[in-house]
Amino acid sequence: MSRHAAPAPPRREEPFDAVDVIRAKRDRQELSDEQIDWVVDAYTRDAVADEQMSALLMAILLNGMNRREISRWTTAMISSGERLDFSRLSRPTADKHSTGGVGDKITLPLAPLVAAHGVAVPQLSGRGLGHTGGTLDKLESIPGWRANLSNDEFFAQLEDVGAVICAAGTGLAPADKRLYALRDVTGTVEAIPLIASSIMSKKIAEGTGALVLDVKVGTGAFMKDIDSAGELARTMVDLGTDAGVTTVALLTDMSTPLGLTAGNALEVRESVEVLDGGGPPDVVELTLALAREMLAAAGKDDVDPADALKDGRAMDVWRRMISAQGGDPDADLPVAKQTHQVLAPAGGVLTRLDALSVGMAAWRLGAGRARKEDPVQAGAGVQMHVKPGALVRAGEPLMTLHTDTPERFERALASLEGAFDIAPEGARPDIGPLVIDRIAAQP
Amino acid sequence: MSRHAAPAPPRREEPFDAVDVIRAKRDRQELSDEQIDWVVDAYTRDAVADEQMSALLMAILLNGMNRREISRWTTAMISSGERLDFSRLSRPTADKHSTGGVGDKITLPLAPLVAAHGVAVPQLSGRGLGHTGGTLDKLESIPGWRANLSNDEFFAQLEDVGAVICAAGTGLAPADKRLYALRDVTGTVEAIPLIASSIMSKKIAEGTGALVLDVKVGTGAFMKDIDSAGELARTMVDLGTDAGVTTVALLTDMSTPLGLTAGNALEVRESVEVLDGGGPPDVVELTLALAREMLAAAGKDDVDPADALKDGRAMDVWRRMISAQGGDPDADLPVAKQTHQVLAPAGGVLTRLDALSVGMAAWRLGAGRARKEDPVQAGAGVQMHVKPGALVRAGEPLMTLHTDTPERFERALASLEGAFDIAPEGARPDIGPLVIDRIAAQP
Repeated sequence: MSRHAAPAPPRREEPFDAVDVIRAKRDRQELSDEQIDWVVDAYTRDAVADEQMSALLMAILLNGMNRREISRWTTAMISSGERLDFSRLSRPTADKHSTGGVGDKITLPLAPLVAAHGVAVPQLSGRGLGHTGGTLDKLESIPGWRANLSNDEFFAQLEDVGAVICAAGTGLAPADKRLYALRDVTGTVEAIPLIASSIMSKKIAEGTGALVLDVKVGTGAFMKDIDSAGELARTMVDLGTDAGVTTVALLTDMSTPLGLTAGNALEVRESVEVLDGGGPPDVVELTLALAREMLAAAGKDDVDPADALKDGRAMDVWRRMISAQGGDPDADLPVAKQTHQVLAPAGGVLTRLDALSVGMAAWRLGAGRARKEDPVQAGAGVQMHVKPGALVRAGEPLMTLHTDTPERFERALASLEGAFDIAPEGARPDIGPLVIDRIAAQP
Repeated sequence: MSRHAAPAPPRREEPFDAVDVIRAKRDRQELSDEQIDWVVDAYTRDAVADEQMSALLMAILLNGMNRREISRWTTAMISSGERLDFSRLSRPTADKHSTGGVGDKITLPLAPLVAAHGVAVPQLSGRGLGHTGGTLDKLESIPGWRANLSNDEFFAQLEDVGAVICAAGTGLAPADKRLYALRDVTGTVEAIPLIASSIMSKKIAEGTGALVLDVKVGTGAFMKDIDSAGELARTMVDLGTDAGVTTVALLTDMSTPLGLTAGNALEVRESVEVLDGGGPPDVVELTLALAREMLAAAGKDDVDPADALKDGRAMDVWRRMISAQGGDPDADLPVAKQTHQVLAPAGGVLTRLDALSVGMAAWRLGAGRARKEDPVQAGAGVQMHVKPGALVRAGEPLMTLHTDTPERFERALASLEGAFDIAPEGARPDIGPLVIDRIAAQP
């Protein structure tokens, strides 16, 4: 084993050796600011190899990073690309990020609602991968709407309309993009420091003045338990605060889907209902709760966002926002070619409707994608007719499944096995409050 | 974070997904036999990528493997290549492996000594990297001697002479070679399950019937403390036993160099002294202790190996072994062009002489290499004139440094700073027994 002890000299003219940095984290030491700056930068220029970074990521996943390390890691990722600056805008900015859930279309009514109150919303979004769907996929079901804007178009629309939901350019935190692809194939996605820095590097680089985080908890969320969701929320609030962004997080329930739809065009339709003053109560509640946080974080804590849903101002911003990106707000939305109803096997109280199962069903119907190259079906998804707490009769439709490709029904139905419980009348549904906790900056 | 939850289908027609295997070990689960077989095999055929294997290796380093997992991992590595079979030999076989130390030339007198008692010694060795030197580098200082033998030459010499020390072919456990190169650059060398399986996969594939392990402990060894050395020894003995090889381990001291030389030709010369019935007492003691274990493990526990050192039988095997591989046992050994003496700064008792410091000095003088492509100097190294416990006078030579390139003296001397202590007469040296412990198979 003589070869094990080689005191080899550094291989390049680099200030650090990747193996020393890996060993430090492996042995539960703190990484210095200089080590973190170097390893992120060296990785982007291929001076640290994929196999070295993945070993470091696994050591970070298992041994953790402290607040200073996570903050520095995030800053290093931001430094790998451009950083937007909204200081020349005539109004304050606020953005929202959700960690993703089933039926989570809140961005659609929220961005115009907040913009209607004079706060600009620069919402850079992504496409969905897996069961939770993506905001851009939803908006792309609107005929003509396009996700890609130039920086000039982005700024002009933000000044003129006040709300933009568009694709994040490749210039923001490019190190994160590469790191995420590596984490995805090396079992290192599920590390709170890495999740937090991935999200926050892009949001901070985006240049928003205030940020409200919607951290989901439950079967349909990435975080299944409240402790890890709380830790993620706290980590991200600290990161935003350290970077000078007013940041607050709500922990919200994702054990059952949000609203009555999961699927692209289905969710746009529901969002328009909310902007029209209607819509499912839970979607309205969460939209208003997040709007209040965004307005307060932007310095407007004296307005009631609900007004703009009633008087049509939010709808007006929505129509201008969709039109500005080439979409026709009056066009008919795509409808799936085939439907299949899921009927209640018995009468009673619907006590549980599982978010993950519904999300998987929507995904299998064609609303989501398995690989990032895959297309999505605009009309596919799950339409729910009842939510937990409702009384149902035997044989009554619980859900309608939508798809263009009926051979998908079988696997979608399989994912709905055991997805709901119906108990005798009088039973209490297994649901808690929608907004579970609020996490703000601490000194 | 919608992308985090992708329930992606397997990417290939493989029985497992690498990410699932990584996640299992990351989450402290046991890997199944089938998972281990698959991941080692898939790695050798590039169906598992380097960045995936390095993440798995880091998870193994931090979360460990149990006896079954390590045994299966070792078997999977053996299955990646050929396995030698000595059953047609006319005598039993026994081999020795040392985890590497400073001045550890024991293989040189030991192989002919054991062969002289009718036990064949098929010793496949390596070259040195770092401060501990390599057996092949030492023998290559003998004019004409060659390390590479064909399988036919190897078997013929083993039958005819009884002892072979040669380079391991690339056919034995090739997965280990690739894994070791990966571990070297990803900070995952220092994992006992991986160290043990790396060593034992090659030794078991080599086909020896019995194996004696010399696990070094101390500053000059890879294992610095007795607990980790004991764990490594126990793990390797278990692995050998599980594979049907009679295996025993000695834990031996490596806080001070073995013998009075560290360097290639210097160590050959000292080995010949031992074979000639002389040599430093510690080298003789360890050679005999290991010889007794090898003979006993091969079923010959009734002979005293010391006889063959006295009566010249071991020397006779040595001469035939060197000649059979093209070497001239009577040739003058190379001598370095320059020497430099290190003098005692004061008189008294030499209480400590640090193994790592002497090993580093020899390495810096040219006896070892930093990269595997580097040449070594046959004559370079450190010749010690005293060992701990000896009385020295001020100004008396403690060591002589040898090199062909005198510009190396400065850095060699730097590594000897603080390498020894001289205490007033009557002080007791800081040394324990050479053989610290013996670890044998347990049921």
